Amino acid sequence: MSLDPIPTPSCPPPDILRCAYMELVVTDLARSRAFYADVLGLAVTEEDDQAVYLRSMDEFIHHNLVLRQGPVAAVAAFAYRVRSPEDLDKAVAFYTELGCRIERRPEGFNKGIGDSVRVEDPLGFPQEFFHDVEHVERLGWRYDLHVPGALVRLDHFNQVTPDVPRAVKHMEDLAFRVTEDIQDEHGTTYAAWMRRKPTVHDTAMTGGDGPRMHHVAFATHEKHNILSICDKLGALRLSDRIERGPGRHGVSNAFYLYLRDPDGHRVEIYTQDYYTGDPDNPVVTWDVHDNQRRDWWGTPVVPSWYTEASLVLDLDGKPKPVVARTDSSEMEVTIGADGFSYTRKGEAMPEYKLGNQL
Amino acid sequence: MSLDPIPTPSCPPPDILRCAYMELVVTDLARSRAFYADVLGLAVTEEDDQAVYLRSMDEFIHHNLVLRQGPVAAVAAFAYRVRSPEDLDKAVAFYTELGCRIERRPEGFNKGIGDSVRVEDPLGFPQEFFHDVEHVERLGWRYDLHVPGALVRLDHFNQVTPDVPRAVKHMEDLAFRVTEDIQDEHGTTYAAWMRRKPTVHDTAMTGGDGPRMHHVAFATHEKHNILSICDKLGALRLSDRIERGPGRHGVSNAFYLYLRDPDGHRVEIYTQDYYTGDPDNPVVTWDVHDNQRRDWWGTPVVPSWYTEASLVLDLDGKPKPVVARTDSSEMEVTIGADGFSYTRKGEAMPEYKLGNQL
Amino acid sequence: MSLDPIPTPSCPPPDILRCAYMELVVTDLARSRAFYADVLGLAVTEEDDQAVYLRSMDEFIHHNLVLRQGPVAAVAAFAYRVRSPEDLDKAVAFYTELGCRIERRPEGFNKGIGDSVRVEDPLGFPQEFFHDVEHVERLGWRYDLHVPGALVRLDHFNQVTPDVPRAVKHMEDLAFRVTEDIQDEHGTTYAAWMRRKPTVHDTAMTGGDGPRMHHVAFATHEKHNILSICDKLGALRLSDRIERGPGRHGVSNAFYLYLRDPDGHRVEIYTQDYYTGDPDNPVVTWDVHDNQRRDWWGTPVVPSWYTEASLVLDLDGKPKPVVARTDSSEMEVTIGADGFSYTRKGEAMPEYKLGNQL
Amino acid sequence: MSLDPIPTPSCPPPDILRCAYMELVVTDLARSRAFYADVLGLAVTEEDDQAVYLRSMDEFIHHNLVLRQGPVAAVAAFAYRVRSPEDLDKAVAFYTELGCRIERRPEGFNKGIGDSVRVEDPLGFPQEFFHDVEHVERLGWRYDLHVPGALVRLDHFNQVTPDVPRAVKHMEDLAFRVTEDIQDEHGTTYAAWMRRKPTVHDTAMTGGDGPRMHHVAFATHEKHNILSICDKLGALRLSDRIERGPGRHGVSNAFYLYLRDPDGHRVEIYTQDYYTGDPDNPVVTWDVHDNQRRDWWGTPVVPSWYTEASLVLDLDGKPKPVVARTDSSEMEVTIGADGFSYTRKGEAMPEYKLGNQL
Repeated sequence: MSLDPIPTPSCPPPDILRCAYMELVVTDLARSRAFYADVLGLAVTEEDDQAVYLRSMDEFIHHNLVLRQGPVAAVAAFAYRVRSPEDLDKAVAFYTELGCRIERRPEGFNKGIGDSVRVEDPLGFPQEFFHDVEHVERLGWRYDLHVPGALVRLDHFNQVTPDVPRAVKHMEDLAFRVTEDIQDEHGTTYAAWMRRKPTVHDTAMTGGDGPRMHHVAFATHEKHNILSICDKLGALRLSDRIERGPGRHGVSNAFYLYLRDPDGHRVEIYTQDYYTGDPDNPVVTWDVHDNQRRDWWGTPVVPSWYTEASLVLDLDGKPKPVVARTDSSEMEVTIGADGFSYTRKGEAMPEYKLGNQL
Repeated sequence: MSLDPIPTPSCPPPDILRCAYMELVVTDLARSRAFYADVLGLAVTEEDDQAVYLRSMDEFIHHNLVLRQGPVAAVAAFAYRVRSPEDLDKAVAFYTELGCRIERRPEGFNKGIGDSVRVEDPLGFPQEFFHDVEHVERLGWRYDLHVPGALVRLDHFNQVTPDVPRAVKHMEDLAFRVTEDIQDEHGTTYAAWMRRKPTVHDTAMTGGDGPRMHHVAFATHEKHNILSICDKLGALRLSDRIERGPGRHGVSNAFYLYLRDPDGHRVEIYTQDYYTGDPDNPVVTWDVHDNQRRDWWGTPVVPSWYTEASLVLDLDGKPKPVVARTDSSEMEVTIGADGFSYTRKGEAMPEYKLGNQL
Repeated sequence: MSLDPIPTPSCPPPDILRCAYMELVVTDLARSRAFYADVLGLAVTEEDDQAVYLRSMDEFIHHNLVLRQGPVAAVAAFAYRVRSPEDLDKAVAFYTELGCRIERRPEGFNKGIGDSVRVEDPLGFPQEFFHDVEHVERLGWRYDLHVPGALVRLDHFNQVTPDVPRAVKHMEDLAFRVTEDIQDEHGTTYAAWMRRKPTVHDTAMTGGDGPRMHHVAFATHEKHNILSICDKLGALRLSDRIERGPGRHGVSNAFYLYLRDPDGHRVEIYTQDYYTGDPDNPVVTWDVHDNQRRDWWGTPVVPSWYTEASLVLDLDGKPKPVVARTDSSEMEVTIGADGFSYTRKGEAMPEYKLGNQL
Repeated sequence: MSLDPIPTPSCPPPDILRCAYMELVVTDLARSRAFYADVLGLAVTEEDDQAVYLRSMDEFIHHNLVLRQGPVAAVAAFAYRVRSPEDLDKAVAFYTELGCRIERRPEGFNKGIGDSVRVEDPLGFPQEFFHDVEHVERLGWRYDLHVPGALVRLDHFNQVTPDVPRAVKHMEDLAFRVTEDIQDEHGTTYAAWMRRKPTVHDTAMTGGDGPRMHHVAFATHEKHNILSICDKLGALRLSDRIERGPGRHGVSNAFYLYLRDPDGHRVEIYTQDYYTGDPDNPVVTWDVHDNQRRDWWGTPVVPSWYTEASLVLDLDGKPKPVVARTDSSEMEVTIGADGFSYTRKGEAMPEYKLGNQL
């Protein structure tokens, strides 16, 4: 439980369908376009000299990612689609009651999107809600356009926040449901995964200095698709874009890969988690010291993955100040001088499982 | 539109989460257990001398399939999970208004399931609704138990009914949504796919003599899992259990395989359709003459797949009489003497794409 | 044993390394280039207005396939690479002793190839032998150039000949070794697979009216690569290029797909047979009535696969006359009116395993 | 070039077909059997209380691995199959001329093997040569016995030796051919790969304190098979058996995984290198500073992989003394204090690519 809980509004939250797109500010639009469109193979729906609108192969809405030229690499919006136009009114009421700064634009903040509400939420994140959207061709059957590592769906966001229980409680007020989390024996929560659509998550809260954006994740159909992205990056002499993985997560049971885009924004490629749509879907709690929680194969997590993340912008487009986490850090309790992890409780691990701890 | 529509009840339908399990009557329980548990690798949750309860690897409810010893191979229930216990009352009210025969059992019709409502629905199918269920271990992480063709999820049912538009309208009253269908230029509907959970379907209606059960489908993670099932059946000299496929569906864009179990019940193995959870998800209508609708690679559909299906039982356990379809048959308009299909509209196809039509 | 055996020359055969390339005459060069380069993704090493030279991803010699514009679709050469330049002299001596027509060109018959010997072999096939060859970049590491269905290697040829034992005996004189064959209980041989490199084959002899070319086969790394070719053909509305498969062969245990190119030349895509390099490698003999011999899953073979094949050219570029097979035909003994096949010896098969037999 | 070359014998070497099996001494036979048979799924051909004989799925000779109970974990033999019985006489002559200790046993050193020659070769390794062998069932078609991570073939050995050029020259005398190697700009060779069968290697020489055994490698058909081994080890809480990978090698272009067995013997799982059987197959030389040479994705190599290896036994079963490498160490020139690696020559790499170097 957080000592500083965000109040639960009396009015109902908007009915969120799913995470729908992220707006990323990039410092060199052509370079970022090359990464997302040419290397990763996302489809360009539309573009101009200020922005590129990209979508995944199975998507029918206008975009899942907006790259926008700007002075500082950051996230301009975590955008969710809501069930109906009326849910925008609910969003306004919900955040008004919380005293948040709100901006509504009937014409949308981005091309292809209609009436939209943006807020600086109580956690400091720029959240967008919209329903009206331009439909475009679903490219799922257009196998002539699929690359070996075809990205088929936007899967989830991941946010860094200092106080995870506080963030979880607020997201539950917004009708998200927790599917998995990481805790220690003292009850400290290090991270939590929450969903609207019935997958493991639409977003996750990762404990750390925040508000920052940890990553945005796209799904492939199969594991070999993810491996082929690595192979291609090697061929392009861009293997240093691979930060972590590929591997199998313990949390979510998905196969994963983490990349860093030209601005350092982290992108996950992800496949094969599980259905979570029943209201009594069992929550999985992982021990922070379980070395298989973050990687089921016990591969060490690189320190940068714990410490680096992207800034987020306020509604004026200025970076939000970052507040330090005061709870224990997952990196320190697991791989720092005083940290420990186990494969089998009570047994030491071989050196090659300790990574940078040595 | 059907000429004989089923009225829309005034009371709201139960909130169905998903197709949850099928109860199959089999004539040799040991033989069927060997097929589903030993060959296909479904996990046995519980069994006695009358029934075997099986589940897929990612499932946390007691079972996705019940095999029950009986005198005639048939389907005893298409069972759906509903969101709350109160939805059972809604189900009773809904079907009462439709004049259907209803049976409610607080202790459930099967082990591991609590309060349940069974009805003979207006289409003649035995439908079950339940919420209370025993939780069991989700075996998704238990890779030591996964076979090469691991089945991870119950995906959908498929029902045969003479009048597809009539069936669709009734399922829409039950709050199912159509995702895809097959029609001809005269507006005749040959089949329709409908969902509650956000996949292409929880059930489909296939035009034909009915009520009968066309198939029950389980999902794998990847396509090679499906291929390995075929390889294993070959090794066991059971390749004649493979009726159709593997192949890629046009409808649903999923990779598929159809098997026939020891009683002739059809089982589909299925993977990689797409997210359909938005309310404005685009409906895909396929031309019945498009040879890629049923198999994206144009592989001919075997006639048995169109004509054979399983009987369904009434609430007394007696087979429901089968009513003939009077609309055009998909088989006849596509591969019969007067039928035709095309790969490219207006162009003839090579003989090897015509299958048994020759 | 053949009643009309080809004599064994007294001089040693050339030391053949492997099947290396096929020269195909095509009637519309641009159309064929589009199929092999754009659809299948073979790399174009070089081209002019009369010919296109293509290679697979792992190849370092100039080409594995030559498409040459010509008036009649046919095969101009089955080309094998030999171990040393001296092996060309051995080839000349070997075929001279057999009374074959021979043509030697120090500058080669095709670009990128040096000193070459072409013969009309005693079976009527245009065979080429060469050693000198231009090296080009091996594209195996160039994953930026790989399509989802990347072809990595030329695997084998397949030839149609009326008298299989006669052909086998001659190929054994050329130091090929049989790895598998199909026979009946009377000792009739329907097909045989033979290798130089340690895979199941460099070429196979298929019983039928010949000399004709049955197919040329390229290998992929994995099965999903083959499936993606089918998916792409569907997307391009070219699914009618898929003649048979994908499936698992009994013979060779490989995963396969048969396509027909724009001229009707048959191309196999093939993956995952086994090592055969030991001199006592066990020969596998399949019963012609075993329904799993041609497809391990028992999928019926389409008649065209048995009956259609490409003409081959003599050294003047004229089509060789085709001689009818007089032994029993595999198609007739297995799927004709008097034919039969079994999944389990002595048991009938379901109709859906009988294909066009009905 | 080595300053201390091993003389080239005047008599010809035996004609080696391929690496055929390794005899491993293990300190707890039951525990090792559980690892190789139950976890990895190798087939047990035969066993007694002193030894277990295992083979891969596509193998037809008696075994590819012998586990023998003993006091010290070590390698008793690297065994190669030769083309004919006469090659054993050639082996005796070859090593006699080199002054090596030789032991010939007509009844073989292991079950299922006939006449065999064992030598302590000039590099200090226990090498075995045999031709006669018991044939057993090839399990390639027995998909009912295949686990998700089925090992289909013994692929290669890897040996640690202080002076790589000296070892390479000796292996070339034995008619091995180099396919790839790692060197620096001063001509120091850090490792070399050599083949008899036409894959990238039957054995490799890795620079380090030796003679020791670096690893033995088994092949799978596809990459997902390797991933499934990792998943299973995680499920069994044995993820600490995973030392390095999975990943894509630069050298060999194969997909790989390194495990440590219960005694610490290193086992590689490997798939998809390329054909190397032409005599002019291009040798690939990698720059030791190229960070993609050992892992194409640039994932850091764990230090233990460079430093740890298994002892080898002399013909009396006593561990051979280990001689230190005096040339530069690959680990030190690439990840030590004075070492460096690059993704793109001249550019620094991000911290997460430096592994334990930090």
